[in-house]
Amino acid sequence: MSYLQKEMTLTAKSRGFHLVTQEILGQLPELHDFSVGVAHIFIQHTSASLSLNENADPSVRDDMESYFNRAVPENAPYFTHIYEGADDMPAHIKAAMLGSSVTIPVTNGRFNLGIWQGIYLCEHRNHARGRRLVVTVQGR
Amino acid sequence: MSYLQKEMTLTAKSRGFHLVTQEILGQLPELHDFSVGVAHIFIQHTSASLSLNENADPSVRDDMESYFNRAVPENAPYFTHIYEGADDMPAHIKAAMLGSSVTIPVTNGRFNLGIWQGIYLCEHRNHARGRRLVVTVQGR
Amino acid sequence: MSYLQKEMTLTAKSRGFHLVTQEILGQLPELHDFSVGVAHIFIQHTSASLSLNENADPSVRDDMESYFNRAVPENAPYFTHIYEGADDMPAHIKAAMLGSSVTIPVTNGRFNLGIWQGIYLCEHRNHARGRRLVVTVQGR
Repeated sequence: MSYLQKEMTLTAKSRGFHLVTQEILGQLPELHDFSVGVAHIFIQHTSASLSLNENADPSVRDDMESYFNRAVPENAPYFTHIYEGADDMPAHIKAAMLGSSVTIPVTNGRFNLGIWQGIYLCEHRNHARGRRLVVTVQGR
Repeated sequence: MSYLQKEMTLTAKSRGFHLVTQEILGQLPELHDFSVGVAHIFIQHTSASLSLNENADPSVRDDMESYFNRAVPENAPYFTHIYEGADDMPAHIKAAMLGSSVTIPVTNGRFNLGIWQGIYLCEHRNHARGRRLVVTVQGR
Repeated sequence: MSYLQKEMTLTAKSRGFHLVTQEILGQLPELHDFSVGVAHIFIQHTSASLSLNENADPSVRDDMESYFNRAVPENAPYFTHIYEGADDMPAHIKAAMLGSSVTIPVTNGRFNLGIWQGIYLCEHRNHARGRRLVVTVQGR
């Protein structure tokens, strides 16, 4: 049994929901060495999040962005944390709703996802740099 | 120390929130072999989710369904992913909000839940088949 | 490799979002013994939740409370689970949205958080006692 832990940086993304399964797997060739276990993928930020959702149709990612922009409005009159821009406080709230990590079963050297599942980077800021991840695989 | 990984299918459920703790435990007798660890319960779908919540009063599950149906409306005029039915895009959004997995501490051969906690299958589609889970228990 | 599992109780908190990173670390000196792994922090309740978010400016926590109180209203006319008070059913819904646990990478004896990340206890009830956590660290 063993532990693999790697830090990696995703390329900078525009605001919105992005499918990043292949970008992560490309930096994780060691996954093939695990026959069983779990992978924990963690984002070290509070204004972007990770989620699992539909991997085929880009319109799902577009509608996610549309929905969360309406559910968490910018410039709400009761916001007090406003000095970093109109997108900042909504970004923190969206990050809380969507979560800072995903945990995925590992089976026979690969992520054991459903056929329609992919990993989303949810970028909530208008102008973000590449986001740092910490990936920990536990298994044997 | 060891890893246990099992795939299981829950019986098909109606749209809504369902308590499935016993249905999962009934397919996981090996849990008794672990004195300490964690159990990761993962759903391989993007239109249903897993959550932990109140295990006693069915009215909580009813109110959850009522709430999320209002928070994530069907037929929102800005949705573009609409060809799989009015319940489809809301199902993806609810799945993102509620999450694809729960992780539960394992202690002395059982889930170490609070006395009021149970596992919910949150079924967001009108007509779904049984949902596939991958359960991974790590511990000793 | 080893497993550490501890139950701990946080001091009672007022309704709102609270930074509890140091309160948890103060009860977890054994974390220093792990060079690599993950920490799973689990709350045994259905009306409070755990989340990771901004650790510096208290206005973020205030705005979180303001936002979620508006997103999940008290006394919604369709609620049926109402006999435990106006704050009860909203507390269950907020707990479902925010989640019952956080999982954090462990590196060189410490939580490998981003520099702006901290652990939030999200207290959704008006009058709660101290909340019980189960912390499981897996690693070597």
